[in-house]
Amino acid sequence: MPYVNIKITRDGASREQKAELIAGVTELLQRVLNKNPATTVVVIDEVDTDNWGIGGESVTTRRAGGR
Amino acid sequence: MPYVNIKITRDGASREQKAELIAGVTELLQRVLNKNPATTVVVIDEVDTDNWGIGGESVTTRRAGGR
Amino acid sequence: MPYVNIKITRDGASREQKAELIAGVTELLQRVLNKNPATTVVVIDEVDTDNWGIGGESVTTRRAGGR
Amino acid sequence: MPYVNIKITRDGASREQKAELIAGVTELLQRVLNKNPATTVVVIDEVDTDNWGIGGESVTTRRAGGR
Amino acid sequence: MPYVNIKITRDGASREQKAELIAGVTELLQRVLNKNPATTVVVIDEVDTDNWGIGGESVTTRRAGGR
Amino acid sequence: MPYVNIKITRDGASREQKAELIAGVTELLQRVLNKNPATTVVVIDEVDTDNWGIGGESVTTRRAGGR
Repeated sequence: MPYVNIKITRDGASREQKAELIAGVTELLQRVLNKNPATTVVVIDEVDTDNWGIGGESVTTRRAGGR
Repeated sequence: MPYVNIKITRDGASREQKAELIAGVTELLQRVLNKNPATTVVVIDEVDTDNWGIGGESVTTRRAGGR
Repeated sequence: MPYVNIKITRDGASREQKAELIAGVTELLQRVLNKNPATTVVVIDEVDTDNWGIGGESVTTRRAGGR
Repeated sequence: MPYVNIKITRDGASREQKAELIAGVTELLQRVLNKNPATTVVVIDEVDTDNWGIGGESVTTRRAGGR
Repeated sequence: MPYVNIKITRDGASREQKAELIAGVTELLQRVLNKNPATTVVVIDEVDTDNWGIGGESVTTRRAGGR
Repeated sequence: MPYVNIKITRDGASREQKAELIAGVTELLQRVLNKNPATTVVVIDEVDTDNWGIGGESVTTRRAGGR
């Protein structure tokens, strides 16, 4: 019954990679806490780099600066 | 003053249906907990089926498999 | 498969009231969008009034001021 | 190490305005709670006005009605 | 730079199990998407069973009914 | 109408400090995006250090190791 929300920057993650995240985190919750995979929900949000900040700057700005 | 976030797969919910969700959940909170509708906030997120997992698989994959 | 998160201030909502919110929002999603109740997940967060702000003030402060 | 999520309606906030939100909230957490800016994460979600409700109505409807 | 939020029912997950979730999901994001573990943030929310609903019922009710 | 969620580790932030965060972020949204403070909602979540991970470790573990 767990609910997992994964937020990543929008950088072209493929359908296969996202499927791998879903499978992996569902398996992790089953292995560690014996959670039922059938009712484990995973939602992936892909966020534009203008809308993601770390260190007080957007990721867009950090990348432009080589950080 | 409640805040409600509704996440659904992106499957063409119409403007009218989303308005009905907003009205319905606001009314529910007023009826059950006497919450003031004027300050009840509802945010609906529509999520691509590649980005929604249940049972360890994406909804895209489940639907392709008839699940 | 929807996921709904309801945030309310911690004001002594009873188990029965919370059950009514869960039933009500699940029914709403079934009625409006034909969502399967079996996989509709609802999570209620009760938040201390010190930790909830509106109008630039905490709810604790607003209530103390009769707002 | 704080994580901040800012949800606003999608109304054409510019890259510069979003950068200002990121810088401002990071600075606020440093000033008030001495949080390390280097690990402060900010995510901004821009939400369609059809998907944002207040007062039991979508923002789209409210604006059409001059509210 | 990913942010992951894991919500589970409050059922006595130990500190060690939660550490295993944190390590596991961080490793998963590194392996699948090459995300930097140093800036991967994981937040685990443990939710009372009265406050978690599935199938239109709280988990408290479902367990009492042997579901 | 913005909604802001601030997550911090539970480290004894005082009522006054939390009020300062609420006031500060509300003022920021007004200044940068001309958002109406009256309907700006801020929710602060304080998270146990066992439940917060960064760099693949819980904050509890990091602090014990002087990191």
